[in-house]
Amino acid sequence: MTPTITAFATSPDRGAGLSRDMRVRWAFEEVGQNYDVRLVSFKQMKEPSHLALQPFGQIPTYEDGDLVLFETGSIILHIAEKHPGLLPDDANARARAISWMFAAIGTVEPPILELQTARFAEGQESWTEQRMPLVKDRIRVRLGELARRLGDSEWLDGAFSAADIMMVHVLLRVKPSGLLDEFANISAYTARAQARPAYQRAFDAQLAVANAAGQQAG
Amino acid sequence: MTPTITAFATSPDRGAGLSRDMRVRWAFEEVGQNYDVRLVSFKQMKEPSHLALQPFGQIPTYEDGDLVLFETGSIILHIAEKHPGLLPDDANARARAISWMFAAIGTVEPPILELQTARFAEGQESWTEQRMPLVKDRIRVRLGELARRLGDSEWLDGAFSAADIMMVHVLLRVKPSGLLDEFANISAYTARAQARPAYQRAFDAQLAVANAAGQQAG
Repeated sequence: MTPTITAFATSPDRGAGLSRDMRVRWAFEEVGQNYDVRLVSFKQMKEPSHLALQPFGQIPTYEDGDLVLFETGSIILHIAEKHPGLLPDDANARARAISWMFAAIGTVEPPILELQTARFAEGQESWTEQRMPLVKDRIRVRLGELARRLGDSEWLDGAFSAADIMMVHVLLRVKPSGLLDEFANISAYTARAQARPAYQRAFDAQLAVANAAGQQAG
Repeated sequence: MTPTITAFATSPDRGAGLSRDMRVRWAFEEVGQNYDVRLVSFKQMKEPSHLALQPFGQIPTYEDGDLVLFETGSIILHIAEKHPGLLPDDANARARAISWMFAAIGTVEPPILELQTARFAEGQESWTEQRMPLVKDRIRVRLGELARRLGDSEWLDGAFSAADIMMVHVLLRVKPSGLLDEFANISAYTARAQARPAYQRAFDAQLAVANAAGQQAG
């Protein structure tokens, strides 16, 4: 059976690849699993039929027969458990990769979300311009710690894994700010990931949705 | 072999149970696994020997023989995979519980972290008092969504699981603000979890560390 995910009918980033369905598309492409996409409007995301799948009214969701999942980390972990190629066979290396999946969501992404909130939810507030350097410095702290650990490594921990999908996509969300450019090895790491054919196919697929909706990447 | 975790030598919450080692202690207690604790000072957390275990200089870490893990989500998932009782046997129910583990970290905790950042990192800034209602409203949105899904259920999805450990502990971090009191079913849910003997044992163990350090819960 082909799993179905949900994605924005009109993506806020107009096909720039920053919506969270991108992570899941990328994981599917890495393992060669076909998938269907059901597009949902912002209105539909808050309606009972979508809330039954995603309690917080977000995308993506994952449906496969009776199984409904939400949260990209758990969807990608599920894909990685069903298909070879996204998690190491060695039990310890597998557990470490899952540590990095949680680190992407729990440690690296929160200050990045704060920047998005400052820009979009508080963009018109009197304090936002003055506050922005503090917000950006908190991201720099995390990026600096990540850069120190990454060093010259190709991927986070040995071979490419689901952890790199999660981390790279979290990092790409802050790329438009220019902050990644301050860390040469992180920039090289994200570029290496973006050069993967699976990333490219996933990117093209989400861009096609934006193009079909008459959107243009900003 | 007895696993070892790290915890604050002097916890910022003075034994109130809000430090992240509490989640891991609670999981160990639920499955009846003994564990050792190595206390680290704030200075030690930023030193190379700790950074080798935890790239972001945080606690807790988990060590068991050759295996080193970080991030509470992955540590608790690992404990749940090694011991019965923290994840359902049914494959679909297990995957759904992992969705909730990621939801605790990726969706519910970020606005709560923002409140902590506003209080502690920006507590002296001119804009903080004025900004606080916006920060709190973002937490209310998430709590409202969670309350709607939780309804009258005892736990998040069927039997008590690792998902409830993660979610309850994330929620307890915002309890001092009074926001949980606005959602009767969430308050009942966290109280139900705190009444579990395993929670109590874990709480007492972390409080004993604070007491031994001459700290007193604020």
